[in-house]
Amino acid sequence: MALNDAGNTKAPAQIDVARYRVKPGARVRLDEWETDTTGDFDGGKKEGKDLLSNLTKQLAKYQEVFYAQGKHRLLIVLQAMDTGGKDGTISHVFKKVNPQGVKVANFKTPTPQELAHDYLWRIHPHVPGNGEMMIFNRSHYEDVLIVRVHGLVPKAVWERRYEQINAFEKMLADEGTTIVKFCLYISKDEQKERLQARLDDPTKHWKFDVNDLAERKRWDAYMDAYEEMLGRTSTSYAPWFIVPGDRKWYRNLVVAQTLVQTLEGLDLHYPEPEQPLDGIVVE
Amino acid sequence: MALNDAGNTKAPAQIDVARYRVKPGARVRLDEWETDTTGDFDGGKKEGKDLLSNLTKQLAKYQEVFYAQGKHRLLIVLQAMDTGGKDGTISHVFKKVNPQGVKVANFKTPTPQELAHDYLWRIHPHVPGNGEMMIFNRSHYEDVLIVRVHGLVPKAVWERRYEQINAFEKMLADEGTTIVKFCLYISKDEQKERLQARLDDPTKHWKFDVNDLAERKRWDAYMDAYEEMLGRTSTSYAPWFIVPGDRKWYRNLVVAQTLVQTLEGLDLHYPEPEQPLDGIVVE
Repeated sequence: MALNDAGNTKAPAQIDVARYRVKPGARVRLDEWETDTTGDFDGGKKEGKDLLSNLTKQLAKYQEVFYAQGKHRLLIVLQAMDTGGKDGTISHVFKKVNPQGVKVANFKTPTPQELAHDYLWRIHPHVPGNGEMMIFNRSHYEDVLIVRVHGLVPKAVWERRYEQINAFEKMLADEGTTIVKFCLYISKDEQKERLQARLDDPTKHWKFDVNDLAERKRWDAYMDAYEEMLGRTSTSYAPWFIVPGDRKWYRNLVVAQTLVQTLEGLDLHYPEPEQPLDGIVVE
Repeated sequence: MALNDAGNTKAPAQIDVARYRVKPGARVRLDEWETDTTGDFDGGKKEGKDLLSNLTKQLAKYQEVFYAQGKHRLLIVLQAMDTGGKDGTISHVFKKVNPQGVKVANFKTPTPQELAHDYLWRIHPHVPGNGEMMIFNRSHYEDVLIVRVHGLVPKAVWERRYEQINAFEKMLADEGTTIVKFCLYISKDEQKERLQARLDDPTKHWKFDVNDLAERKRWDAYMDAYEEMLGRTSTSYAPWFIVPGDRKWYRNLVVAQTLVQTLEGLDLHYPEPEQPLDGIVVE
């Protein structure tokens, strides 16, 4: 670990995140993945929140070195069904990180100008540069999810995109970007409860969109699209993690632990000054 | 040909451009390619200029339909050694095209911000959208030319880029972009004359750059880099043409004829009005 000079010691991982990683080429069947598990974590919500507090502190420290070093690039992709917890994950996992150090790109319904170009055209400008951490809240994966489910392009077109996306991410990785992708996975029942909660609470009405109900009717078609996406685009250089999403505190733990381990895998260290600073006096 | 409604008739090609197209996977040896040929064109400079005038008119007509139709995307890549004629080609071949209909992106020395990202990051935002023609004056190919010749990145890095570029262009092509790439090929002697001409003529001094002399010393290394680039990135979906460049009038003819034929291969036609216009009276 090159992080000693950042004053950190690497704590043993308390969440085994490897179990959530999708093996390249896997045939994913989402009904075999649990949405409400807490893995082998031997604590409850209270202990989970304490651990998250530690992990988010660690993440904040690492981010500072990451930024100062200005060498690595980190791309974090978040995908989920509606109410799946993308916004909540961002706010909880990154709450201690300097907001200047991490950016979020939201990819909503494409504009006419975006639709007049290839689907990666609006994505590419937002990939991280040296020392940058970028979170994609939705992403180019919408182009094999909603686009596929709604038949917005012919099958022959979206079918090619798995390979195109792999090539795109491979190029980014070869050129120096670390990529981690999270699929926040909730059950259909959990979505029902969350949508109902938005209806019941006037302070959450702004989050409710009637279109979500129409999308919910296509649940099975979405699961098919997710399964194919996860199996075909989880790679050694850009792995997918299927994060159990029903318990928000555990979901946050899995994402935070995965990111901490990812950063620990990089040679993070503060850069050497370009010239020795010994003896320099500020007068 | 769907161009009848544009009032055009397709003239028989007078320049056989297929001979300049690099076959995918070819082992290119540039010393087997002539720089001063005029192919089987049975005319001189005078006849060549007359023909160019016809071709550029045709190009202008096609461009108008292309724009009105708003369906196709055309990407034209120009690469050449210094003094190779990129600027001259653009001004002569496109001189009759509505400047609103064709855009030029110049890729010069990358900025620090561009260098902090993958090399396609500064390229992708400039690819054409529906109804757009885009000319790349230099391009991502600099990243396997000057970058290779000067060793700006390790061999392992530029070596991967041929495949990455093919994947990038394949994605663009799959998503609806027509790509044509021209390598304007001049002899080393011709470059000497052109550089000297810039020195001799005060109105051309602004085009002279002393760095061009240093680059000229690396001529052989550049030829090696060009040969590998041409052989490895000329594909069915994004072919390279090696254009004989010593005679400017013939070079322009080859580029213009290739573009005219490329556009004739598309189903260009004015779009149908969204509702019948018969009987509409402007009062």
